[in-house]
Amino acid sequence: MNQNTQSTNAAQIIAADWVIPMTKTDHWLNNHAVVISGHQIIDILPQDQLIEKYPDAPVTRLDGQALMPGLVNSHCHAAMNLLRGLSDDLPLKEWLENAIWPVEAQFVDDEFVYQGTQHAIAEMIRSGTTCFQDMYFMPNQAAKAVQESGIRASIGLVVVEFETSWSANAQEAIDKGLDVFDQFKHSTTCSFNFAPHAPYTVAKETLEKIGMLSNELNMTVQIHVHETAGEVESFVEENGIRPLARLKEIGLLSPLLNAVHMTQLNEGEIEWLAEAGCHVIHCPQSNMKLASGICPTMQLLDANVNLAIGTDGAASNNDLDMIDELRSASLLAKLDYLNPTALTAYQSLHAATMGGAKALGLQDQIGSIELSKAADIIAIDLNQIETQPVYNPISQIVYAAARNQVSNVWVNGKRLLKDKALTTMNEALVIQNAKHWQTKIINREA
Amino acid sequence: MNQNTQSTNAAQIIAADWVIPMTKTDHWLNNHAVVISGHQIIDILPQDQLIEKYPDAPVTRLDGQALMPGLVNSHCHAAMNLLRGLSDDLPLKEWLENAIWPVEAQFVDDEFVYQGTQHAIAEMIRSGTTCFQDMYFMPNQAAKAVQESGIRASIGLVVVEFETSWSANAQEAIDKGLDVFDQFKHSTTCSFNFAPHAPYTVAKETLEKIGMLSNELNMTVQIHVHETAGEVESFVEENGIRPLARLKEIGLLSPLLNAVHMTQLNEGEIEWLAEAGCHVIHCPQSNMKLASGICPTMQLLDANVNLAIGTDGAASNNDLDMIDELRSASLLAKLDYLNPTALTAYQSLHAATMGGAKALGLQDQIGSIELSKAADIIAIDLNQIETQPVYNPISQIVYAAARNQVSNVWVNGKRLLKDKALTTMNEALVIQNAKHWQTKIINREA
Repeated sequence: MNQNTQSTNAAQIIAADWVIPMTKTDHWLNNHAVVISGHQIIDILPQDQLIEKYPDAPVTRLDGQALMPGLVNSHCHAAMNLLRGLSDDLPLKEWLENAIWPVEAQFVDDEFVYQGTQHAIAEMIRSGTTCFQDMYFMPNQAAKAVQESGIRASIGLVVVEFETSWSANAQEAIDKGLDVFDQFKHSTTCSFNFAPHAPYTVAKETLEKIGMLSNELNMTVQIHVHETAGEVESFVEENGIRPLARLKEIGLLSPLLNAVHMTQLNEGEIEWLAEAGCHVIHCPQSNMKLASGICPTMQLLDANVNLAIGTDGAASNNDLDMIDELRSASLLAKLDYLNPTALTAYQSLHAATMGGAKALGLQDQIGSIELSKAADIIAIDLNQIETQPVYNPISQIVYAAARNQVSNVWVNGKRLLKDKALTTMNEALVIQNAKHWQTKIINREA
Repeated sequence: MNQNTQSTNAAQIIAADWVIPMTKTDHWLNNHAVVISGHQIIDILPQDQLIEKYPDAPVTRLDGQALMPGLVNSHCHAAMNLLRGLSDDLPLKEWLENAIWPVEAQFVDDEFVYQGTQHAIAEMIRSGTTCFQDMYFMPNQAAKAVQESGIRASIGLVVVEFETSWSANAQEAIDKGLDVFDQFKHSTTCSFNFAPHAPYTVAKETLEKIGMLSNELNMTVQIHVHETAGEVESFVEENGIRPLARLKEIGLLSPLLNAVHMTQLNEGEIEWLAEAGCHVIHCPQSNMKLASGICPTMQLLDANVNLAIGTDGAASNNDLDMIDELRSASLLAKLDYLNPTALTAYQSLHAATMGGAKALGLQDQIGSIELSKAADIIAIDLNQIETQPVYNPISQIVYAAARNQVSNVWVNGKRLLKDKALTTMNEALVIQNAKHWQTKIINREA
């Protein structure tokens, strides 16, 4: 073992006022420390036992701060950060057809996806997201940006029937996607999922093919399902069956399925999801902003369906701020059920950490602070006027903290945000690239 | 005129990439500057005309930033900041009776209100609020904190029938309130309103008295009305009339009325509000968190009722972040009306600035960037990853910006936040005081 390896694997300590492991309801540890070695968590102990047990290990002291597992953004379209705020307050059809699609058709290329994903990753690391599930074109470019930055991600191998900048048809999308999967298969932080866009944009035969491949390769499947009432209605008109029933028929309901949005669900459908062990990705702000409806979070949790949270893309939502998103999840559920105890702070935080980890099939690696899990950890500085006093750190994080209070972020043991500064990305360059695209897009310069 | 007065009244210039005057729908000025002298705005002009017109005036250049009128938080209970997060995810009755009221009964005194209000003011200045409407006990202490900090406020002279730390009964509350009004009547930034808590906690005779006094003194009246369905129901059971009808009967519906919450409204009632020129204060996050219901914002705007926005108190909401609050207002309206064009970014921003100014009776002084209005101005730094690129600064502020991007705040021409640092308040002391109360309250030490 050379010197370099030794120092990488030597224990290092992060000590904070509160450690929130997300292993037990409303549970936190006061004045504890998390010890990491290499990419793993190897110990969690009271600070007063630190010196005795690890006399030589370097200590990062985070006074007034809370340590918790990194947030898992379970659904976004990362590269669309470059279209943030391009066109708001419009009906969905007008937004897509007049604003987004023409711009995508003209501008989406390798560079757009690479730089757009970098932008999104920078935003996510700064706001405490350590893992995201992506769905966009050019997954090879997204994977490259993920690898370089050190963040963890499950990149969607996007599939639609029609021609895009990425693929001529669904078969080409699958083939090219599998090539990308092959290319990055040894990555420790970058994994892949099949991402057929939706039942109404992907043919039954293609979905069947994806179902087969996902079983063979044990890859999760991410798909927009029942996002709006209108979409369900027209699917029924055309196919005589609801979209989720179509997925069931094909055999896609399984623990590999990530059903995104799900604002339209009847009781029978919730049972199907529960029995099959599917995961639901709730995107509350996107569903509000696009006037889609509300995902029935409490009914899903009551039926033991795993719930995760996603921001959706910045072209619609318009940020990738998981703290604001999970706060919205709790507030929205209370209103929806006219019950102030619905979706508690802990439940939302769980959906945004362990829930996401489970959905992405990464529950053995991430989602909680536990021995031998990967050190995907964030620190939130509660020692600010906006989060004082602190009676309950979980309440303060969910209901009062803001993204800029995320001070430090570790992914796989590597510190990607150090005292609010990105360590693996050039922030100024990321902003400069965004301005470059802004000018091109405003002037519609190819 | 001495040297000091001269320099105070000399022109000073604030130049920014965008000036959003809030005088016209979806309107902003590129590369403009706002010129202030003393407490007033005296000019708004393109930056390239600055040197010619004001060759000697000092210029504050805010590159990549947007200037807009300060946010008006039209309803809060400032001192309750000290109870932030004490008790969340509980039913309203349990929250009030088991958590909040016993703690208030034991701890609320002059020092609690003074230091709690200071804490709230610090939070509000840091997040771009230049004016707030308060409702809490000991309005003299709140007014003192307002005066010292330089923020603008309309302090509620709170009135309830039962005994509190402030008053033995409603008559004493009115008398003591009028004394406070007298004591601060020469203040330029501190004004007062009558704040009877609600129709169900204040007797008809007391409301009649308040109506008379408010007309005599031309003082606005702030009152919680139709916050929950249950409250309306039990009022009807006891009184045979809905609470708003009671206020109408008494003659309280007028341009002086600030009706707070208003989640339960029928069409006839909206007409009453419109005809009488009342103002509605919408508190979306509080209404969501306490599962109260939704204020019908679009119907109110369509009927030409003035709409303002408030955060409510931090013991329930749990922050005083107007940017997050107005974003919630837009998202909630779109969902409520299943219409993505409902309550646009501009409409919410208007409610949070001009709407608030009108509600508080301060529309001639604040709420927009216009000549001869008071210089209550904020700057928001959009040059951050989270708000890049910028296609539309209004969209970016409403849907993507966060409170920490507020960089500079002027109230009545005085710079209260300079490059994110408070100039009139000791931030460390404010936090220290919060910790002091936290310890006392956790240990229930009197």
